[in-house]
Amino acid sequence: MNHAAQPSALKKPLPAALLAALGAIFGERLSTTQAMREHHGRDESSYDPMLPDAVVFAHSTDEVAAAVTLCSRYEIPIIPYGTGTSLEGHVLALHGGITIDVSQMDKVVAIHAEDLTATVQAGVTRKQLNMEIKDSGLFFPIDPGADASLGGMAATRASGTNAVRYGTMRENTLALTVVGADGRILRTGTRARKSSAGYDLTRVYVGSEGTLGIITEVTVKLYPQPEAISAAVCSFPSTADAVNAVIQTIQMGVPVARVEFLDENGVKAINAHDKLGLPEQPLLLFEFHGSQHGVQEQAELVQQITAEHNASGFEWATRPEDRSRLWAARHNAYFALLQMRPGSRSISTDCCVPISRLAECILDTKIDCEKHGVIYSIIGHVGDGNFHVLMLVDPHNPDEVATAEGINQRMVARAIAMDGTCTGEHGVGMHKMDFLVQEHGENAIDAMRAIKHALDPKNIMNPGKIIHW
Amino acid sequence: MNHAAQPSALKKPLPAALLAALGAIFGERLSTTQAMREHHGRDESSYDPMLPDAVVFAHSTDEVAAAVTLCSRYEIPIIPYGTGTSLEGHVLALHGGITIDVSQMDKVVAIHAEDLTATVQAGVTRKQLNMEIKDSGLFFPIDPGADASLGGMAATRASGTNAVRYGTMRENTLALTVVGADGRILRTGTRARKSSAGYDLTRVYVGSEGTLGIITEVTVKLYPQPEAISAAVCSFPSTADAVNAVIQTIQMGVPVARVEFLDENGVKAINAHDKLGLPEQPLLLFEFHGSQHGVQEQAELVQQITAEHNASGFEWATRPEDRSRLWAARHNAYFALLQMRPGSRSISTDCCVPISRLAECILDTKIDCEKHGVIYSIIGHVGDGNFHVLMLVDPHNPDEVATAEGINQRMVARAIAMDGTCTGEHGVGMHKMDFLVQEHGENAIDAMRAIKHALDPKNIMNPGKIIHW
Repeated sequence: MNHAAQPSALKKPLPAALLAALGAIFGERLSTTQAMREHHGRDESSYDPMLPDAVVFAHSTDEVAAAVTLCSRYEIPIIPYGTGTSLEGHVLALHGGITIDVSQMDKVVAIHAEDLTATVQAGVTRKQLNMEIKDSGLFFPIDPGADASLGGMAATRASGTNAVRYGTMRENTLALTVVGADGRILRTGTRARKSSAGYDLTRVYVGSEGTLGIITEVTVKLYPQPEAISAAVCSFPSTADAVNAVIQTIQMGVPVARVEFLDENGVKAINAHDKLGLPEQPLLLFEFHGSQHGVQEQAELVQQITAEHNASGFEWATRPEDRSRLWAARHNAYFALLQMRPGSRSISTDCCVPISRLAECILDTKIDCEKHGVIYSIIGHVGDGNFHVLMLVDPHNPDEVATAEGINQRMVARAIAMDGTCTGEHGVGMHKMDFLVQEHGENAIDAMRAIKHALDPKNIMNPGKIIHW
Repeated sequence: MNHAAQPSALKKPLPAALLAALGAIFGERLSTTQAMREHHGRDESSYDPMLPDAVVFAHSTDEVAAAVTLCSRYEIPIIPYGTGTSLEGHVLALHGGITIDVSQMDKVVAIHAEDLTATVQAGVTRKQLNMEIKDSGLFFPIDPGADASLGGMAATRASGTNAVRYGTMRENTLALTVVGADGRILRTGTRARKSSAGYDLTRVYVGSEGTLGIITEVTVKLYPQPEAISAAVCSFPSTADAVNAVIQTIQMGVPVARVEFLDENGVKAINAHDKLGLPEQPLLLFEFHGSQHGVQEQAELVQQITAEHNASGFEWATRPEDRSRLWAARHNAYFALLQMRPGSRSISTDCCVPISRLAECILDTKIDCEKHGVIYSIIGHVGDGNFHVLMLVDPHNPDEVATAEGINQRMVARAIAMDGTCTGEHGVGMHKMDFLVQEHGENAIDAMRAIKHALDPKNIMNPGKIIHW
């Protein structure tokens, strides 16, 4: 991987007629300024920006369809853009083209509280949705680190800290409105909670990272706010102890809502950033949802399990403000870590393994990081077997980038050898395309490619991401 | 719909060379006898049989791959076959061809108890799997009425009574081995519980009913056997009361493991068949899974809710033998109902709607059944908004068949108008192909067709099912 911009042999000049036609539709919501193009040509990855030729801000599915129809006619690439918080280069304009920014499609279309569903435009963010439904007694649990848009979260099959209990966007997306590569508008799924009616188009588009179409509306499941919530935190003498406690918790079927691991480096970073004074050891952060009694029962069981694995300092946080402070610190870990090395960028990668292999996979990855002297932290949604490695590099130092990339490659190879996956929630983008072949094998990749060719025959939908054409 | 066999214009004579080549691989496990072909040319639907030209019994993925490779070469249709318990004509050989029976692929390949996963050959049935893992402390929850094969359950995206708590085959299938239409072997997914690695091929094949490839191995999630289980039953003066009690239970987030509705006709049938003496009124049957205290808490809450909806005779069944008797009766409802009219066949259909519309959808369907004087019962996995209509018809009386079909069509139209689906768990088969267009619209159907053309370009995989070529 080269983190510098790569010139594209496939890049075509933007036809003036296309720009004029887009201008007629979008008016001032079409921009070709350098600043706007730069803003849209990068994400949270360590790639240098790759700029689109123009950006349009859509307000409706029909406007997206009109833009796609035009781009299809001229065979110009389209890059969908929500909040720009992807981590693997998903939104970079590898071959130029038009970025369709849906962040202004920010209307909640319908809340069906009685059915526990919400339908939103693709630009609505997870925090916005939760704000808008907070008086209904319901909540939407999926929480990737960033306040991402629901469209982007569906497109990358996002998850987060609550997935161990509530599932990911795969399980929680009921229906989509999608603009296909020819500009036609599709509706996939319904608001029924299950269906055996034909091919599962919803899950074809969930996780397709804009390479098969643009998601313009998302219908998701909501959940009743639990009667009681409590959180607990405890520290461990070693990573193995912490992870083994999690493994046993899951194997016993304790329905924890969240269980997050921070290694000692992560704890140091949030201590510094959030002034927390936690012991600088591997740490687990739990959250329990249920009835008053159910929450207490879960927490007591977890306290027993963690004690058997040498936990110390088991502490409760039942008051909302204490819980919020701990979880805010967890959510800020990425930014807290970045401040450990000013001027650096983070190479952030993730993988997911069957839970019995989790301790081994994390430990071997830690050893690899230590051996190469990188500044790093391992943080994980460990109840799912999913963890992240954050490595701080000077992006202008090719040796550092190469070292981090080597660690990433070995971590992925390790996860795949354990019957795991090269990414649990970040997605493929440009960065993990080769790993995808390693994980799935040529035959499955050919089937993916056949689907790409069938649904995007001109290769204009976010080209150069997920699979090689 | 015509329930008599339809002559196929596409049917081709079976090449002698193909038969010889299959014989060389399968020996005595290749059959062309009339009896064997008849056995494989029908399912539990009311369709008359449509016979394949030959049947092979595969013992391995490699044998399936060899058979598919041959059929692809000669462009001869392939019909995958598990237990033959599908309900919408899925396994009928509409255009002749070779039925590949996987029922002898009945090995459990691997149990990873520590990861809560099992990998099985496609012919392993759900009861067999549960028998084989019962000493592990784990269970596999998905239970369609029949003791279906896991391969068939994946192929029809099956669910059953536990789906309200544990999900369907959509949520519980982690990975598949599939033989594609060209005979190549694909592996989709991994044993990791979540992944953002590329297109979700697992869920492309789950629910594809053998039209994109043949599933030969399935990796599913397992669950710890709950510490405590209890069941409860109660009767209601009206269908509306029963269904409204369910709606409130779900909206309050009570984590019921099962909640089944039987209308008064269903109760009569199981009373007669299982000698139960239940009040012949609409009935709900609940099951609760959890800790001792959690189960009690759920049941008390449900008792309150049902009382508010005029329930009577709320009874507990905490002893395993009492629970088993009630649930066996529920599972036998289909056969119990058939005995209400000897010599009849059941036209069995299902749909699924957002739960707020469930009472209305069931009631309007009941009124339609009453108006047309059919012998019927409505039985449902109502926690999901999913219900079944079973109508007993003389399959040789076209008027009766047409009346039942009219009721089915109106039920589906009603469900779709309520933002529901034409089938919650039975699948499309030959019977619901036109409804699929109604539900999804031409643009989404074109996307499904593009996927079919991409993955099965010769249209040899279970042709004539799900979508028109």
